[in-house]
Amino acid sequence: MTQLPPFLEEPDDTQQAIMKATYVALCEHGYSDLTIQRIGDEFSKSKSLLYHHYDSKDDLLLDFLEFMLAEFESEIPAEDEERYDEHIDDICSGDFEFGGPEANLDFTKALVELRAQAAHDDAFREYFERTDRSIKAYLEETIRTGIDRGVFRAVDPEATAALLMIVTTGTMFQRATGSDAVVEGAGAAFEQYVQTHLLNADFSPSD
Amino acid sequence: MTQLPPFLEEPDDTQQAIMKATYVALCEHGYSDLTIQRIGDEFSKSKSLLYHHYDSKDDLLLDFLEFMLAEFESEIPAEDEERYDEHIDDICSGDFEFGGPEANLDFTKALVELRAQAAHDDAFREYFERTDRSIKAYLEETIRTGIDRGVFRAVDPEATAALLMIVTTGTMFQRATGSDAVVEGAGAAFEQYVQTHLLNADFSPSD
Repeated sequence: MTQLPPFLEEPDDTQQAIMKATYVALCEHGYSDLTIQRIGDEFSKSKSLLYHHYDSKDDLLLDFLEFMLAEFESEIPAEDEERYDEHIDDICSGDFEFGGPEANLDFTKALVELRAQAAHDDAFREYFERTDRSIKAYLEETIRTGIDRGVFRAVDPEATAALLMIVTTGTMFQRATGSDAVVEGAGAAFEQYVQTHLLNADFSPSD
Repeated sequence: MTQLPPFLEEPDDTQQAIMKATYVALCEHGYSDLTIQRIGDEFSKSKSLLYHHYDSKDDLLLDFLEFMLAEFESEIPAEDEERYDEHIDDICSGDFEFGGPEANLDFTKALVELRAQAAHDDAFREYFERTDRSIKAYLEETIRTGIDRGVFRAVDPEATAALLMIVTTGTMFQRATGSDAVVEGAGAAFEQYVQTHLLNADFSPSD
């Protein structure tokens, strides 16, 4: 059984059912061996619906990526400041989605393959540049909030957010394609960086 | 004209000529659109030689990757300690191959696509795990040498080498597939990390 993210467990409508089938098929086959047929095999409704809606595998996958981005963006706290604390905690504990050991490795591998398409495909490139901007803005705001609350030192939010992104992307790529020893060693070194560079040693939660 | 690494500029024999043609064709077409035919187009000798030697595009590309790894390993200083200083300087200045702005972006893109194959192809996976071990051992030795000479602080060589690798891999992946603003910001933050975490502030070259 594929380990599903909670928002895909119980699809409410046909679009969500297609997204769930795509997630499962991506985890099972990866990008290169994926076909609309194989996504259809995970879909309880008529397969012809898929062929009717999508011109190609990439067309469907780009729609899937938009769905994932919308889900990510719906999780970003707006005025609800309390939820920022969870996100600050995630940074403090090094618990970043997809890069971390809790993430579904099959999905991390598929995501790495999808992102690699951006090297030579403009539609994927446009998508990942837009996703990067969205994640960067969210991380910057999280870091600013952490600085305001005294949890973080007065670091440069833009540069620090960018480094968190590079480390997360690098960790995803490494987990999906290379030696695990590198992932473990880097995790330890980065945790030390967060402790000594980012966390405010003088902070106490009662401040 | 493709920007070539110096060791490919003047091929000495047929194998090197094939490797040069592969490099040029990879830069021009990327991985997905590459064919043996297109590599043959960059090769001045008989194309049938390529078909005779290689069963498939991946077969040729794995041979190309072995050639690149052998070239990398031939650059690692053994007893010639002076050459370590250059490599220590590279770390101090953040000048890592392929991740840096000096690298050939077309080749970085192709290398990202090749590495992404490791997510679902055992031959590529075995290659990149072996490459990672080789690079990690070399970086650890460079960091140990830097510590011995007093240039670096007494950091953990394994964890620090692993973090350098994750940042380099992440930067390559980001440059090839996403927003440049992330690469620039992360570069600035990582330079600060190197300054404050790795470099020994008390070191003076006359020590």
